Formats: sequence, C-alpha cells, structure tokens
Amino acid sequence: MRCEVVAVGSELLLGQINDTNSSWIGQELAAVGIDSHYQTKVGDNLDRMVEVIEIALERSDAVICTGGLGPTQDDITREAIAKVMGVELVTDEALVEKIRHMFGSRGRDMPESNLLQARVPAGASAIPVQPGTAPGLAAEFERNGETKLIYAVPGVPWEMQEMMTGFIVPDLMARSGASAVIRSRVLRTWGTQEAALGEQLAEEIERLDAEGSVTIAFLASGMEGLKVRLTAKGTDEAEVEALLDAEDARVREIIGPIVFGVDDENMEAVVLRLCKEQGLTLATAESITGGLIAQRLTAVPGSSAAFRGGVISYATDVKTAVLGAPEGPSVSEEMVEAMALGACATLGADVAVATTGVAGPDAWEGIPPGTVWVATCVDGEVESHMLRFRTDRDRSRQYTTITVLNFLRKRLVARAD
Amino acid sequence: MRCEVVAVGSELLLGQINDTNSSWIGQELAAVGIDSHYQTKVGDNLDRMVEVIEIALERSDAVICTGGLGPTQDDITREAIAKVMGVELVTDEALVEKIRHMFGSRGRDMPESNLLQARVPAGASAIPVQPGTAPGLAAEFERNGETKLIYAVPGVPWEMQEMMTGFIVPDLMARSGASAVIRSRVLRTWGTQEAALGEQLAEEIERLDAEGSVTIAFLASGMEGLKVRLTAKGTDEAEVEALLDAEDARVREIIGPIVFGVDDENMEAVVLRLCKEQGLTLATAESITGGLIAQRLTAVPGSSAAFRGGVISYATDVKTAVLGAPEGPSVSEEMVEAMALGACATLGADVAVATTGVAGPDAWEGIPPGTVWVATCVDGEVESHMLRFRTDRDRSRQYTTITVLNFLRKRLVARAD
Repeated sequence: MRCEVVAVGSELLLGQINDTNSSWIGQELAAVGIDSHYQTKVGDNLDRMVEVIEIALERSDAVICTGGLGPTQDDITREAIAKVMGVELVTDEALVEKIRHMFGSRGRDMPESNLLQARVPAGASAIPVQPGTAPGLAAEFERNGETKLIYAVPGVPWEMQEMMTGFIVPDLMARSGASAVIRSRVLRTWGTQEAALGEQLAEEIERLDAEGSVTIAFLASGMEGLKVRLTAKGTDEAEVEALLDAEDARVREIIGPIVFGVDDENMEAVVLRLCKEQGLTLATAESITGGLIAQRLTAVPGSSAAFRGGVISYATDVKTAVLGAPEGPSVSEEMVEAMALGACATLGADVAVATTGVAGPDAWEGIPPGTVWVATCVDGEVESHMLRFRTDRDRSRQYTTITVLNFLRKRLVARAD
Repeated sequence: MRCEVVAVGSELLLGQINDTNSSWIGQELAAVGIDSHYQTKVGDNLDRMVEVIEIALERSDAVICTGGLGPTQDDITREAIAKVMGVELVTDEALVEKIRHMFGSRGRDMPESNLLQARVPAGASAIPVQPGTAPGLAAEFERNGETKLIYAVPGVPWEMQEMMTGFIVPDLMARSGASAVIRSRVLRTWGTQEAALGEQLAEEIERLDAEGSVTIAFLASGMEGLKVRLTAKGTDEAEVEALLDAEDARVREIIGPIVFGVDDENMEAVVLRLCKEQGLTLATAESITGGLIAQRLTAVPGSSAAFRGGVISYATDVKTAVLGAPEGPSVSEEMVEAMALGACATLGADVAVATTGVAGPDAWEGIPPGTVWVATCVDGEVESHMLRFRTDRDRSRQYTTITVLNFLRKRLVARAD
C-alpha cells in the first residue's frame, strides 16, 4: 500500500505556516508499514491541486489531502477532489445538521458560509470522526481498473491527527490487509548526544541488522531529548510485544539510567507519577522558566492529585516577599536553594523544584545569559546545580525545565529504592 | 519566473526531521516576486528523485533541490541532477582543493569520502558561496528549446540560507529581470470565526480583486486567532508600503476592535507593551491555566520591565493561603475576582489577570469540564467573565490564556484613551 500526502495552502508555499502535517502523517504511516514516497505542497489553486492529486494517484494507491476544508472562498479541496473523481459536489443533509448542531451547542449561530462544508463529492462520504466544525472526506473510486482512495482532512493539526488515528490509519491498514503486525516502542532519554548513543548501541544495532526482526532508530526530538525507537515486525500482537519487551530490556541494560520514559510519557508525567506513587505533593518556584515548569506539569491530566501550585518570582523582591528567600544576588546557589525550600513552605508541598537564571538576550548584573541555577527539595533536603547554556532564550528555558525535572526524577527513583 | 523546491531525504518523509527549508525558500522567493507553486518532498531514491525533478522542470523554469549533498552513499542529489541533465559526473579539481583546504584549515584530515562532494554534473558548476564543506550546485541547460535552471543546496539550514541569499536569489532575480516588489502585512485578530470574517470583508475583497494591487487572505492560526494577510505588489518599497498602510486602515475600519496586533506581535507582547507604555506592572493568578499565562508573558524578551510574577494556585487552599481569597467554591465569579485582587496585593502589581476553571477531562464538584472564570484587575477595579469550552484540556487552557489577556488588552487600550 502506497499513500502520498498533499498539503494544500498558499500560506505553506509562502512559508507563513510550516507544513508539519505531512511529516506527522508520514511518521504514522511508516509506523504501520505503509509507504509514503512523495509529499507535495500546493497552493489554493484548483487546476494545480487537481494536477498534483492526479500525479499522486498515478504513483500511489491512496492520497491524503490536508487543508482547504474551511468555509471560505479559497477552501477548494472539496472541488478539487470532485474534479479528480469526475463528479459533482452534492449537499450532505446529515452534515448540515451536524454542523448546525455544533454551532448551536456552542451557543453560536452558524454563518451561512459554513454550509459549504457540507458539500461532498458525489460518491464520497464524510469521515465519521469530526473533532471540529470541518468535516473530513473519504472517497473510493475506480481509475484505469484500479481502486484508488482519497482522504481529505483539515489543516488544523489536532483535527487532522484525530481523523488520522481515529479513522484513516485503521482504514488503510484494513484495506492493505496488512497481515504483518508492526509496532514501535519509544524509549525516551535525557542527557546524552546522538553520536554517543549511536556508539553505545552500535554493536546491538549490528546484531539486530543480522537478525532482522527488530530495528532501532534514533529520533532527535530537540528539546524533549533523544528518542530511541524500537520497531518490531511479526505475525501477531503477542509475538511483536514479546520482541519489543526483550529488546527494551537489552537496550536498557546498555544505556540504562538515561531512559526516563516510554512512548508518550514525557518528563513531567513521569515526575507526577513518581510523586503519586510515593504519596508526595509537589510545588514549583520559578524565575527564569517563568511558569513553564508548572504549565507543563498542569498540562498532564490528573496532575492536581500531586501538584499543589507554584510561585513565579520574576521580580527579585517577590523572591523574598512571597518565598521568604533572604536578600542577596538573585541568580545564585543560595537563592535557588532558598526558593526551593520556600516553595515547599509557602505552598505546603513535600517536594519542589526551583529555577533562577539569566534567560538573555542580554547579560544581567554582570552575569552572562545562559547562566542558570536549579534546585530540588525532597523531604526538606535541597540539592542544587549550575547549568550553562549557549543557546537562545526559549531553549534555555526549555532545557532548564526538563533538566531540573530530571534531577527530581532521579531523586524520587532513588528514594523509592 | 517560476521556481519549485524539491526537498530530498527519507527522514523528511518519515517525519524524523521537519522540512522547514522549503517554507523558508518559498518565503524568500515570494519576497522578490518569484512564484513557487509546488514544493515536493522525496526520499533518497535515485529514480524517484529524477522523476520529481523532471515533473518540476515541466511546470517551472527553475528547481532548487535541498539535501543529499553530503559525503555518504545515500547522498545522491548530484547523481540525480546529472541523470536529469543527461550528463556524467566529473571531478572538479578546484573543488577538491577547496574541500581539502577547508579540512586543513580546521586542522582535520579529509576523509576520502568527502571527495564525492567534488563530483559535479558535466556543464554544472559549484555555487561560489560555500559556508560548509558541502558545495552547492548550479546548472543551466536547454530542454525542449527552453532554458532550465537547477540549483542544489545542502539540507543544513544555515548553509542553505547563505547560498540562497548570497547567490541563488540574486541569480534568479537577475535572470527574471524581476523589478516588482511584493510585501505582506498580517493583522492579527482574536474573537471571531473565519466564516464571519469572510462575510465582513467580502465586499472589500471583491473591490480589491477588481483593483488588483492588493490581496487579502485569511490564515487560521489555530490557538493564536485568525490572521488577515494583506499583500501588496508595486514598483518600489515606498509604493508598496503606502498601499499596505491604506489597506490596513480600510480593513481596521471594517473589522476594527478584533485586531490586536501586527505581524509577529502576539497577544502577550501587546499586553506587555501597553503596560510599559502606561508605566504599569503586571501579575498573574492562575488555576486552570497552571502557569501558561506567565510562561507566555516571560517568553517575551524584556518582559521583566513590566511583569512582577505570578501565583499558580492549583490546590484550593493555596488560593486562600497565598492569594488571600475567601473560602468558597473555587470555580466561581467570587473566587476569580478575589484571585485577581490577590495577585495585585500579594505580588505588588498595578494590573493582573486571573483564571480558574475545570480543564477536564472529568467534571469537578459537579461543574462540567470547559467551565472557566477569568478576571482582570486594573487600578483596583475587577472585571470577570465566564467562558465555556467544548474542547480538550490543552485547548481550553490556551483559549483561556489568550481570552483573558485580550480582556486586559481592551481595558488598557480604553484606559489610554
């Protein structure tokens, strides 16, 4: 089964928005063994869209179009697909009702133009999964004696993703009769370089190449650390799971402690899980990270079971007034440790993390940007570390966040032993 | 002059790396009035690369290939271009020397494999600008009586960018005799639907279509609101700027108050600017947003000039203990207003925003997820609003953040009048 991606939107060609949808879709397809050899970006132009979809259908069995399903004049993906199929657009009354209802349930009137979104190429149908107001499309038709598939999803990433995982990927797998089961597991690491990881695992990768049932790939995921993806192929779920479990164990034996989570479990989720398991409450005191740590913790559903709250002590006197830190240089070991203790006291928590530093772009009180102090407090005991970054404001804050959470994670793991 | 982009690399199709080069190139080309109607991603496969470049040359005058110029076996962009041109690869002795010299000047021996990078399609030449060890390629040749251009640049963004601005863009402009200047301006809006905006501006868009010098496009940027992009074409900067200023004024007359910023100025940057202009300090009290507001504010360089800090009162008793809010239901008008006043008092700020609500996925104290209260405090006066979302946890938090900042923005704008 070959499936191409066509990303629609002049703003993608003009670089006003980055097309991240194609890459995401390519990753999902690869994970289930469906090839995506070509991905094309085209503007909001009917003839060009039709041409691109035609070319894709000549090379592949299926095409997934993203974008151009909105309610405005330049949303013409519906028209393009109808033209490729050689059919008319017809109004889907069920869709009209569905869209009307969506607006109604949000206490809003539906602009008439949204009815455009209920227009469907004759013979195509709406994708049952519809997280937003824009319906997706699925069409199957004959072309030179071959069955071809066209899917259309909105360009809004979360809507696209829900339609992909909820309908399109399962549909493609069923149709491709993919008997081989392919599953991946991602071991998430923090605190090493890709080259170093490659050297550590070089032998194991050679062994696997010879064997053939499992493969290892490194995914640099920027500010979320390095991911080691294990992919196993087998005849059924049980076999594949067994292969993944065995390889998971072997890899951990080699790279051990730098693995902090599996698959979608990010650093903050791991820390919250460890806190809950040990019946501990958590608090934050943030200066350089300015709420980033708390924001990431509270993005995890159920975080309220462990997270008490935080203080963002951006102005120096807030550190003393609210956190009870002593007067003194605000980017220092003494300050960050006082902040961590203050977070536990002020917010009534068992453990805490604290950060202070110079985000930049400019130096501050003679301290160069990228200078950061972080601290963790567990059972009243504080530990602090100095970090140095040679990167921009945003990355410094992101790295600081994951680094201090990783320090806390290690202490909590040790505490449980 | 039409110029397509072909991004080469299997890792791009697999989503292990996002192709940001095509977008960047598209932006540069648009800025000088060169059309880029198609951008294609293809893997490290000779036949597919040749096919994609052939298709691009049929539709366009020039093709820019990015990636596949490295020294390894799967870097085959050189071979693909030679095959398209119908010529052999020849060794460019000058390039051999240049590459040898580069390694030498870095005190490193040159691996023999790097000599591959000195192989050039007969008739093509190396791009004079060469920031890294990988040379770029430029080729001009006849095809069905038409002159075609092929450029190849490394996939490493900064190397690609230096070759683009230092050689390819000037070369294309000279060849196309491009004199037209094209500039865009983005008006950022919050609080309306794309369809509604389309209806409001329908007449104006028709008028512009008839006139032809300025165009309007809508860019749904998800949780950052709707963008209205004005694009003007003229003979020089001054004329284009005048066109944009005039259209900017006309559009604001029609959609007025929902415009909060221009181009890259996001909501938090606008609020911070207004605070600084009015000599006001700012604080936050966050429950449902859990630090997201403070994090976005502190992501803006120079935010410390206005932002004092914040309290994340996630646990109910933190709202009373730290912010001095009265006992009572924690998702209510009374609570959110007490939080906003408490933020000003506790953190010593002139203005504040506060949020409390049920992020979900589950209801809480019988209150359905998506129920949110927000408040703004300006000069000691509090205003609050209830919001209702039918979306997931993350989006509820994002929408809450921008919505409450927008309420504050409006009050600060009114205050200045």
